[in-house]
Amino acid sequence: MASKSPISVRKQALPDPLELDSGRALAGVEIAFETYGELAADKSNAILVFHALTGDQFLASEHPLTGKPGWWARMVGPGKPIDTDRFYVICANVLGSCLGSTGPASINMGDGGTGVPYGMEFPVITIRDMVRAQMRLLDVLGIETLHAVVGGSMGGMQALSCAANFPDRTDRVLAIATTARHSAQNIAFHEVGRQAIMADPNWQGGAYYDGSTPDKGLSVARMAAHITYLSEAGLTEKFGRRLQDRDAKSFGFDADFQVESYLRYQGISFSDRFDANSYLYITRAMDYFDLAEEHGGRLSQAFAGARNTRFCFVSFDTDWLYTTADMREIVHALNAVAAPVSFVELSAPFGHDSFLLDVPPLDRVVKGFIG
Amino acid sequence: MASKSPISVRKQALPDPLELDSGRALAGVEIAFETYGELAADKSNAILVFHALTGDQFLASEHPLTGKPGWWARMVGPGKPIDTDRFYVICANVLGSCLGSTGPASINMGDGGTGVPYGMEFPVITIRDMVRAQMRLLDVLGIETLHAVVGGSMGGMQALSCAANFPDRTDRVLAIATTARHSAQNIAFHEVGRQAIMADPNWQGGAYYDGSTPDKGLSVARMAAHITYLSEAGLTEKFGRRLQDRDAKSFGFDADFQVESYLRYQGISFSDRFDANSYLYITRAMDYFDLAEEHGGRLSQAFAGARNTRFCFVSFDTDWLYTTADMREIVHALNAVAAPVSFVELSAPFGHDSFLLDVPPLDRVVKGFIG
Repeated sequence: MASKSPISVRKQALPDPLELDSGRALAGVEIAFETYGELAADKSNAILVFHALTGDQFLASEHPLTGKPGWWARMVGPGKPIDTDRFYVICANVLGSCLGSTGPASINMGDGGTGVPYGMEFPVITIRDMVRAQMRLLDVLGIETLHAVVGGSMGGMQALSCAANFPDRTDRVLAIATTARHSAQNIAFHEVGRQAIMADPNWQGGAYYDGSTPDKGLSVARMAAHITYLSEAGLTEKFGRRLQDRDAKSFGFDADFQVESYLRYQGISFSDRFDANSYLYITRAMDYFDLAEEHGGRLSQAFAGARNTRFCFVSFDTDWLYTTADMREIVHALNAVAAPVSFVELSAPFGHDSFLLDVPPLDRVVKGFIG
Repeated sequence: MASKSPISVRKQALPDPLELDSGRALAGVEIAFETYGELAADKSNAILVFHALTGDQFLASEHPLTGKPGWWARMVGPGKPIDTDRFYVICANVLGSCLGSTGPASINMGDGGTGVPYGMEFPVITIRDMVRAQMRLLDVLGIETLHAVVGGSMGGMQALSCAANFPDRTDRVLAIATTARHSAQNIAFHEVGRQAIMADPNWQGGAYYDGSTPDKGLSVARMAAHITYLSEAGLTEKFGRRLQDRDAKSFGFDADFQVESYLRYQGISFSDRFDANSYLYITRAMDYFDLAEEHGGRLSQAFAGARNTRFCFVSFDTDWLYTTADMREIVHALNAVAAPVSFVELSAPFGHDSFLLDVPPLDRVVKGFIG
């Protein structure tokens, strides 16, 4: 496609420049967000949900580009485990993304601004920077303390970062299918995706916004990542070696197998809705994530200020991206500072994506912990 | 690079066209091969080693393009587990590859030949086609029955295919780190690689031989595949989150982490020595591989003629590409036809690549089985 459709979304400008982990400051930051439910008069019922790498603020409402239901509509809504009849649920598009928050596709209007999209002039950001921006949004909304922060995958990283860096701003932390540190294998898969994008001649060093976008590269990046979101057994059950719309192999290079056709579709539909530079920046932020490193090399040290926060962790037995062992390490660190923590490994066939899918025990855990 | 260096290698023309599983026949096939040791007067001491996806015939001698030692020099040679003082070891470049055997880079000289490289006019081939071509090579060499066939990964697939389709031609089958059927996840990773190659504008529908080659796409394909050859724990041990030639993160998109730098190097050096179209054709052959499907849907049926062949299988505990469970399925099928089979799972930290690396217990198993 030539360019992603412009959309009109709810957003909030942050009043001052945002200080970043890189040492740079970003002026004119806008954060796009959605809310569900009503804020109580004493502002005690707010829950902040952090989204994952390719997610967005359309948690429980229709996505404006795809027309699909919210990505967690099964979990958030009236009478749902995160009950919007009782809670005021906020979900913000992360800094660096492309659904209305400031990111590489935004016009560089700051001091020395160029008046054209940042592209690769956008500063490299971190998970902590994403959280900082959202805390600043809460300041504007006048919300001091949250009932809970909740997130899966990269959303879980933000929840952990929030607990470590802003421990007074939330009473509860619920982190699902996540890790406190990106592993060499995690970094490796992301690097493949970044190289696929940068190999696309349309990428043009990131300065593609007035021309064709690097959809082929982004599509390959998505395909590689998508495999890591599913379990081997889940792929076998869903597709096996079944052929796509044919009775016999074609002895050609069409998508003979259903799994090929499925992956190609995932790649193409993703590149219709997402900005390639945002993908570069957000994967970089995830790869940089190492909560212990930020806090003197000891993970328990990261949680020293969070002794009065209640934690809940959920892993999935078929998730090989962020494993039960990864999450157990976080629990041990919290045990070391005597923080109240519960941890459950759920059995689900869907691999890492289980946190987004129909896993009824997850609903019960979320509902029970949110209270 | 503009084109891969032409090299002069030992090769043999097959006297008649090769009938392929696709129904097509390929005329003028040449098979490049190397031999090590001396063939006994009664021709009873020949061992055929099948190479893996990106391997070649330079099993125990220097690679003519890279100058590196043979890929299995640690296993094959005088006094080695496969002892060339006793055995005559043959290793042929597979049909479809690019080290001298006929493949998509070869000039199409057959009936209706175009006089230019096949490119995507090359027929889609199968693992069985690769084995057929090598049996035809043995015919020319006058070798009726082999002492053993040996192979790891795709080499193991060829060993299994040989046992199933040419059971009288070998007394022993040694298959390492392999599978009887490519899974949905296996296919998915290969499809990512193929799409990366085809997304490279230099690919030109496969007709790139007089211009620039799709090295960026091939490099991304190799990077994605390479991750699957290593274990998560092995990557962590080898690289962890260590930085490459720097003390702190750059807050940029250079290869900050050692694992990024390593992967980029793997991609680039591979594209210097391998043909992108060969990568397409060979991965397709692997994805098509399903030994049971070829034999009425029952794996044991595939081995009905191999009751007098001795089998040995080796898996590695950290191999998540072709797992111990995959190999156990083959053993069960052989048990069902009462074929003599031994099976061992070895512990090694290197993932799938263990079959190529320093795993002394593997040496002992190979030596013991070859006899």
